[in-house]
Amino acid sequence: MPELRKDIITREWVILAKERAKRPSDFKPQEKAKTQEQFDPNCPFCPGNESKTPPEILAYRPGDTKPNTIGWRVRVTSNKFPALDIEGELSRKDISIYDWMNGAGAHEVVIETPAHGLSIANVLEDQVEEIVWAYCDRYNSLRRDPRLKYILIFRNHGKVAGCSLAHPHSQIVATPIIPQKVWGKIKGVEQYREYRDRCVFCHVVELERELGERIVAENSGFIACTPYASRSPFQTWIIPKTHRACFARMSRFEVAEFAQILKETLLRLHLCLSDPPYNFAILTAPCESDMLEDTFHWHVEITPRLSTPAGFELGTSIYINTVPPEDAAGYLREIKIEKSKKIEPAICETRIA
Amino acid sequence: MPELRKDIITREWVILAKERAKRPSDFKPQEKAKTQEQFDPNCPFCPGNESKTPPEILAYRPGDTKPNTIGWRVRVTSNKFPALDIEGELSRKDISIYDWMNGAGAHEVVIETPAHGLSIANVLEDQVEEIVWAYCDRYNSLRRDPRLKYILIFRNHGKVAGCSLAHPHSQIVATPIIPQKVWGKIKGVEQYREYRDRCVFCHVVELERELGERIVAENSGFIACTPYASRSPFQTWIIPKTHRACFARMSRFEVAEFAQILKETLLRLHLCLSDPPYNFAILTAPCESDMLEDTFHWHVEITPRLSTPAGFELGTSIYINTVPPEDAAGYLREIKIEKSKKIEPAICETRIA
Repeated sequence: MPELRKDIITREWVILAKERAKRPSDFKPQEKAKTQEQFDPNCPFCPGNESKTPPEILAYRPGDTKPNTIGWRVRVTSNKFPALDIEGELSRKDISIYDWMNGAGAHEVVIETPAHGLSIANVLEDQVEEIVWAYCDRYNSLRRDPRLKYILIFRNHGKVAGCSLAHPHSQIVATPIIPQKVWGKIKGVEQYREYRDRCVFCHVVELERELGERIVAENSGFIACTPYASRSPFQTWIIPKTHRACFARMSRFEVAEFAQILKETLLRLHLCLSDPPYNFAILTAPCESDMLEDTFHWHVEITPRLSTPAGFELGTSIYINTVPPEDAAGYLREIKIEKSKKIEPAICETRIA
Repeated sequence: MPELRKDIITREWVILAKERAKRPSDFKPQEKAKTQEQFDPNCPFCPGNESKTPPEILAYRPGDTKPNTIGWRVRVTSNKFPALDIEGELSRKDISIYDWMNGAGAHEVVIETPAHGLSIANVLEDQVEEIVWAYCDRYNSLRRDPRLKYILIFRNHGKVAGCSLAHPHSQIVATPIIPQKVWGKIKGVEQYREYRDRCVFCHVVELERELGERIVAENSGFIACTPYASRSPFQTWIIPKTHRACFARMSRFEVAEFAQILKETLLRLHLCLSDPPYNFAILTAPCESDMLEDTFHWHVEITPRLSTPAGFELGTSIYINTVPPEDAAGYLREIKIEKSKKIEPAICETRIA
């Protein structure tokens, strides 16, 4: 018989249809891009094509190179087709009974590496650290803008996951409102604290480490695990072991640990599911409350796009998942990976914005 | 500049990125099934193949034909691969800090017509009426089961919308819990009533009829309109003009009106967007409260699947829509359709379950 499981934070039920259970090989690998080249002369994100993007907002590059020229290791620009616009004051009005707001906000692109054909799963860990530093630097810069209430950092990998440009990049969107999904999580954290007097995420970390069956990876600062009520096959969370509302106040050591587990988790997914399309999002506290530690516990949601939500999901927001998270975690743990030899990065010297 | 619009019922914001605005022809028509034949010998839903499905639960067929043989006009069976299981008692337990429930419920298939290659958009209106009667009959039968808290009737059309069998069919899933999405709508209805002392859907119907710009179709019982805060291109709602919590207590006249506007709306979408993939869901009150008129106002949400939700949508539940609902409604209204000549159906005589 199928079973129902309830997400402990958002209270959303999920149907786990084990009778339809699938193994990793049942999921078709995604259509591969024709080229796995490290350079594509037509790609606006490849080195040498800096003029094809809006001017850079941030770049980690040697001190003797000029902005908007080659030499960068990570580069941030605004999005050429922004979903929200950085110019202009916030304004609100009523359109009869409806609420309207102009689309002031920010939409940036983090070009993660000069290499066209790579991905977070297969760049060096040092490179992932620099990507995470870019996330933090941009977050901390944007959060000073009083118009912006929430900053989401996310990544689309593969066409099915909504990615239109193959060159590896993440995106940052800052919104003038706090998204409903984030409110839902805040409420979950609040109510659990009222009821049990502790953070629900801290409790989940403690319990999942004890049980072990849903753990995908772990290091001294983080766990990666498949959530008890996974909405879709191989959904994976990364949660810091230490309670913290905002991701962008990590220490240098924590950044290194986070980069390690992010890369390891994506590499395990890459190897287990033949480079699946996926999205990830860093869920962190809203700007105004990100210093209030009680309000949130930041975490990453990684969602491989292996199934299609249909009328039932759209009508109920109950997801039907065919892979028990315990099985998914088992498959991911089994993957043999060589831990990359850590090269001590000279981050402080080379991070020149 | 993009704009933000807030859904008046669920309070979810939507980003309307008009700068990226698209015309109907910008959406690629879906991959067509190889056959548009009216009969496929390998299809389990085609007449003559009745033994390939579970036994019929309901069928509208002439009195001189036997169950599970040819002759039916609409046929309902349980789903061969059910997401929830009709057998067994409800049971709940705790798995440490998590909530668990066994997957008791119901999952049925409404085979809408014997003709393999048709769809609600292009069958006769009488046939649509019979489909709607089947929805009502099955709803009213299932709602007597005290284990079932909610009954969702929905339809997936096209592969992209999660449809795996081409033969036209809808699905009914009854769940042992009230879905979060429905709670969200109930709360919206409640709060609007507390605040303004009236039903928010009634208010929307009144206003949209007055404004006209988002109206797609209208008859004496219903309006079809694109919602002010449409989450995706060409999203369309059908709302009864008369306040009613539960869809399954329509009069015979209302069923005919609903069938007419459902068919007309789907036909307009079909012609405007070259047979797009879509989902629709009938959102109605939970079983326990469907006699309490104040709690809900039933309606249909039709969602053409023309865009891919990506990391931003998954991380925030804020959708980015590129087609203003006023434009979408305009395109849909412009479509010339011949109103089908109404043949008075002999429903009462032929509805033999």
